[in-house]
Amino acid sequence: MSQGDEVLTGQTVDTNAAWLAARLTELGVRVVRHVTVGDEVEAIRGALAAAAAEASLVICTGGLGPTADDLTAEAVALAFAAPLALDEVALAHVEGLYRAFGRAMPPSNRKQALLPARSLRLDNPHGTACGFALEHGGAWVACLPGVPREMKPMFETQVLPRVVARLQLAPGRLVTLRTTGVGESTLQDRIGAFAHPAAVLGYRTSLGENQIKLRFTAGTPDDEVRALVADVAARIGSPVFAVDGLDGLGGGLAATVGAALVAQGHTLAVAESCTGGQLSALCTAEPGASAWFLEGAVVYDNAAKVARAGVPAALLEAHGAVSEPVARALAEGIRTALGATHGLATTGIAGPSGGSEAKPVGTVHLAHASPHGTTHRLVRLAGDRERIQGLAAHAVLDLLRRHLQGLHPADAAPPPR
Amino acid sequence: MSQGDEVLTGQTVDTNAAWLAARLTELGVRVVRHVTVGDEVEAIRGALAAAAAEASLVICTGGLGPTADDLTAEAVALAFAAPLALDEVALAHVEGLYRAFGRAMPPSNRKQALLPARSLRLDNPHGTACGFALEHGGAWVACLPGVPREMKPMFETQVLPRVVARLQLAPGRLVTLRTTGVGESTLQDRIGAFAHPAAVLGYRTSLGENQIKLRFTAGTPDDEVRALVADVAARIGSPVFAVDGLDGLGGGLAATVGAALVAQGHTLAVAESCTGGQLSALCTAEPGASAWFLEGAVVYDNAAKVARAGVPAALLEAHGAVSEPVARALAEGIRTALGATHGLATTGIAGPSGGSEAKPVGTVHLAHASPHGTTHRLVRLAGDRERIQGLAAHAVLDLLRRHLQGLHPADAAPPPR
Repeated sequence: MSQGDEVLTGQTVDTNAAWLAARLTELGVRVVRHVTVGDEVEAIRGALAAAAAEASLVICTGGLGPTADDLTAEAVALAFAAPLALDEVALAHVEGLYRAFGRAMPPSNRKQALLPARSLRLDNPHGTACGFALEHGGAWVACLPGVPREMKPMFETQVLPRVVARLQLAPGRLVTLRTTGVGESTLQDRIGAFAHPAAVLGYRTSLGENQIKLRFTAGTPDDEVRALVADVAARIGSPVFAVDGLDGLGGGLAATVGAALVAQGHTLAVAESCTGGQLSALCTAEPGASAWFLEGAVVYDNAAKVARAGVPAALLEAHGAVSEPVARALAEGIRTALGATHGLATTGIAGPSGGSEAKPVGTVHLAHASPHGTTHRLVRLAGDRERIQGLAAHAVLDLLRRHLQGLHPADAAPPPR
Repeated sequence: MSQGDEVLTGQTVDTNAAWLAARLTELGVRVVRHVTVGDEVEAIRGALAAAAAEASLVICTGGLGPTADDLTAEAVALAFAAPLALDEVALAHVEGLYRAFGRAMPPSNRKQALLPARSLRLDNPHGTACGFALEHGGAWVACLPGVPREMKPMFETQVLPRVVARLQLAPGRLVTLRTTGVGESTLQDRIGAFAHPAAVLGYRTSLGENQIKLRFTAGTPDDEVRALVADVAARIGSPVFAVDGLDGLGGGLAATVGAALVAQGHTLAVAESCTGGQLSALCTAEPGASAWFLEGAVVYDNAAKVARAGVPAALLEAHGAVSEPVARALAEGIRTALGATHGLATTGIAGPSGGSEAKPVGTVHLAHASPHGTTHRLVRLAGDRERIQGLAAHAVLDLLRRHLQGLHPADAAPPPR
């Protein structure tokens, strides 16, 4: 359950509901409903009562602040006949936070220390809003603040262990295979029929990445887990760039590339045209990128391609900026100019305008230059400008990943087994 | 209402609910509840019946595909005693889409042409899933596909006009003041008490931008709208960078800067250190950025700062990379190297590591160089790495916006009125 007018009116996208649902599903809880109501005590009370009647677990976020429209505790008190009472520990916590900032607690914050009778206080190390949990007619109801960076650690440390104990869950082990460059339907085709007594398989998609999540029953022997993960990875083939939850390994595409570069003492410089900074941003989003990322040149203008990456003007004239020769020259030029081990380049048409019949929107030339030569790939990407830029940034970084892992630049389905 | 296991289990964040809620709120509809249920016919049926009993308008997304777990039409048929029947137009539509791709329609897609009795077909120009709407006991229930790029145009062209007519809404006029550089509480303080018989004021926040939304009652005279918008804008002062919904003006921060640069025949080059490509990405996300954005240099490494932006090595040694002199030298150097009218630069500590007592995480030096000289600003930003990078990119672009609009580099509260 999410409370708050900002969610109800669409000012805020409810990411808490998705995050909680994903965590609970991973634990083996069957989520049956999400409900959002606004800042009205009767609406919250009614939704709470209905949820507690329907489910054995109710998790609420939001409505625990100090202002007049924060009504969750009051609604819980009404719904479950648990009148509010002052919790001295909660009060001391709020007062302490204000004292740490050299300020006196405003009177309105006293409200945040009023918790429903019979409830268990859930401490919030990152904010003033304490949470609480109580039992009612067989249901366990936990109320958490709506701010994600406060809510998530409270869930992990104080709610999750109690949910596992109450519902006698055996959370088991979650292993995530992270892939790039292929769609979910291709992954499904390659994995084929999946049936294993100890594991459930699911998918998760984000821009430039598809994840395969394998949830193993608690107690599944480690070698059985490894054998099944290896089997699924072999079916998928080279799109798997990392595995989370197996060893210390894992992480995103840029982290995988960065770790491999650091291990070999290599460095990277990039020249981006159509990706417009997204490739540099993808790399530098990794903490510690300064150990391997030397420079990104966003050579948007043709003059910049000449001046910065040494692309011969004649090449631009002969083939146009969106061409294989220019992509190759960009990657080689930026590598040489910076003295980097590797150079990556993108040039293409991100749209919405600029496309032609020969080079439609989504046409992108990718190139990777290294001491071993230069590799080129032409991709045709679908979507809006932002999506094409993001997919192209992932695709060219994957060209480097494939080189570093000794794989062919282009993916192909593994042979049937 | 959202249907689908992928939303219920948190695999997909439900952006449809927020988008629909925001559109309906803008139209003057009071949204009372969002509900998400999974791919189970009885769960959908129960939620539909409850929603139609509670509200006069129910909008559902998802569950209209061809597979066995797409159950919305079946649930509607049960909930509202409206048995499914073949709609020949819907069938011809699906068959036609397959024909256009040179394929025969798989038998499973025939299901998508089965619509509830008494329902109105809602055409889907972008996919196979037709929607439908029907009346039940005073409520109007509309079912749309879950794919946002199919759902949104169907809502705008086929649902919205009918909602406006049925609920006799007078949508009025929405004007959005777009601001950067100040938080919502500062905006509230500056605007002060707001009470106007013909307008409602709301806020919306995204990374680097706060919007003030003024919704005017239908029929409010244009000069009254303009006077009130001018009054609110004057109270806020220089953080307002654009106004949407008043004239042809409006758009994001990069669009505002780009339009001003193009109008004056100016160009821009940027040298980013701590923003790592986010500033270039912010600029090049604008279609047509090639008219004014010459180059972005992501000079992450000190050697790149020297080689690319001509920062003297002695300056780096004397002050460190995160310093005012280096920020100024970067902006001036990139401007000169590219022959651009304007140069922008960022250097700072995005975290999570690298901070010190003197230069904590979030310390960012910004600089703008132009033919009129160089301006520097030091900002201290809060948040995680991604947030600090994004806020710094907005802040330095705003330094240029302020120059182009003849404003002081730093914001100050306007004098009391």
